[in-house]
Amino acid sequence: MAPPDPDAALIADVFARDCPSRDVLAHVAGKWAVLALLALDEGGYRFNALRRRVQGVSEKMLAQTLQTLERDGLVAREVVTAIPPRVEYALTPLGARVAGQVRGLVELLEDALPDVVAARDTYDGRVNAL
Amino acid sequence: MAPPDPDAALIADVFARDCPSRDVLAHVAGKWAVLALLALDEGGYRFNALRRRVQGVSEKMLAQTLQTLERDGLVAREVVTAIPPRVEYALTPLGARVAGQVRGLVELLEDALPDVVAARDTYDGRVNAL
Repeated sequence: MAPPDPDAALIADVFARDCPSRDVLAHVAGKWAVLALLALDEGGYRFNALRRRVQGVSEKMLAQTLQTLERDGLVAREVVTAIPPRVEYALTPLGARVAGQVRGLVELLEDALPDVVAARDTYDGRVNAL
Repeated sequence: MAPPDPDAALIADVFARDCPSRDVLAHVAGKWAVLALLALDEGGYRFNALRRRVQGVSEKMLAQTLQTLERDGLVAREVVTAIPPRVEYALTPLGARVAGQVRGLVELLEDALPDVVAARDTYDGRVNAL
């Protein structure tokens, strides 16, 4: 066992069934939310352009993801005054900080992909040998 | 719009519908996977102790989560030779790196919780005023 973690009080909160931080975590941790945050970290997007960027997301799923992120204060819906007026989605300052952390995680997973693929081959070989 | 991102090539991979990094992301990004990784970052756990630590997870969900993380090479299942022998789950070195990144994200969300709650109140007030 590792020694007790200095952040144990913090962790205890996330682990608690009723801690509201769990909701936020669940909102941010979904696959589509992660990809939407990373895309918006590149700059503002209109809905349809964002949908093209996040390949494979359905219109309904993306709308729902953006609405949840907007409600949590991570994404802002901005009406750009032009002719015709258009709506753009962008990260709030808090959203940008969250996106930065998410990017660190994604980059680590990207780098680790060869190791992950090798681990899967080993695992599947072992399971198939049973 | 922000200037083009220097990591665009990397991001393009995660955004691609068929990139295997998406699977890994989806495995790691689930709520239960996040909590399991954080718990195991505290040290090795037996199945039932881990289930008590990650409040609210079903036996089936936790078993499935651990199996996926083991297959991806993030968690190792270790048979401890004792009487009776027991099985412990622990992070691999790669799993520990992923857990560290996940912890950074969770700590940010924890810190931001008051802002998130305030954003939700504002959002709900606006929606209810319609």
